[in-house]
Amino acid sequence: MQSSDAKLSRNSLLLALRCYSSAVLNMEQTVLLPSLLRDVPDEHNEPGSSLDLYQDYLMLKAIRNMVESGMVPYEETQKRSGSEDDLESRFHFHLRGLFNIMAALTKKSQNLTGKYLDIIGISR
Amino acid sequence: MQSSDAKLSRNSLLLALRCYSSAVLNMEQTVLLPSLLRDVPDEHNEPGSSLDLYQDYLMLKAIRNMVESGMVPYEETQKRSGSEDDLESRFHFHLRGLFNIMAALTKKSQNLTGKYLDIIGISR
Repeated sequence: MQSSDAKLSRNSLLLALRCYSSAVLNMEQTVLLPSLLRDVPDEHNEPGSSLDLYQDYLMLKAIRNMVESGMVPYEETQKRSGSEDDLESRFHFHLRGLFNIMAALTKKSQNLTGKYLDIIGISR
Repeated sequence: MQSSDAKLSRNSLLLALRCYSSAVLNMEQTVLLPSLLRDVPDEHNEPGSSLDLYQDYLMLKAIRNMVESGMVPYEETQKRSGSEDDLESRFHFHLRGLFNIMAALTKKSQNLTGKYLDIIGISR
């Protein structure tokens, strides 16, 4: 497990997650009065979006908390999907997707190991 | 950065990735003669799949290597998508998706921080 931990620390997805945490930490330390961001439009948002920078600020912090502490509950994801904050929905979609795939692949690896033991005649 | 690293180590996605690495390591240590898995059908595969357990074994190891060392090149993903190994395609899709989303969110956080500095009159 120690060796696989060491390898995982070089994983580029992990680096992307750390990079994001670091950017949000810098944002929090800079933005001392978040209310100044109210009603300031975000020119990078998609056309028609009514999100202002204050809502962006809250969303970015919420996602950071999710990245650091665990998964969003399924029900919450359902409730929020389809809303204007498309990046957030896509984050939930891919995080949940990757999580489910990892569980399926882990199960597949365990099944294959068991099947091999059957083939060589070692009962489990 | 140290504090955010400590928090990331509790992240459930990271735990899922470690759990997968561990299952594949156990598989490798158990399956000493992978060729015994040739032509053994995988009853868990989707109907119509021609993958045998040997191909599953290679796929599970390839994904573990990707999880531990970094991203799959975009071109390789394109080439492989649409093939029978659906779990692998979905893994690539969500890993690439999450990676792109994290980059977009990081950029958004940096833009917001810059905009706040503009608002309070601190030039960058």
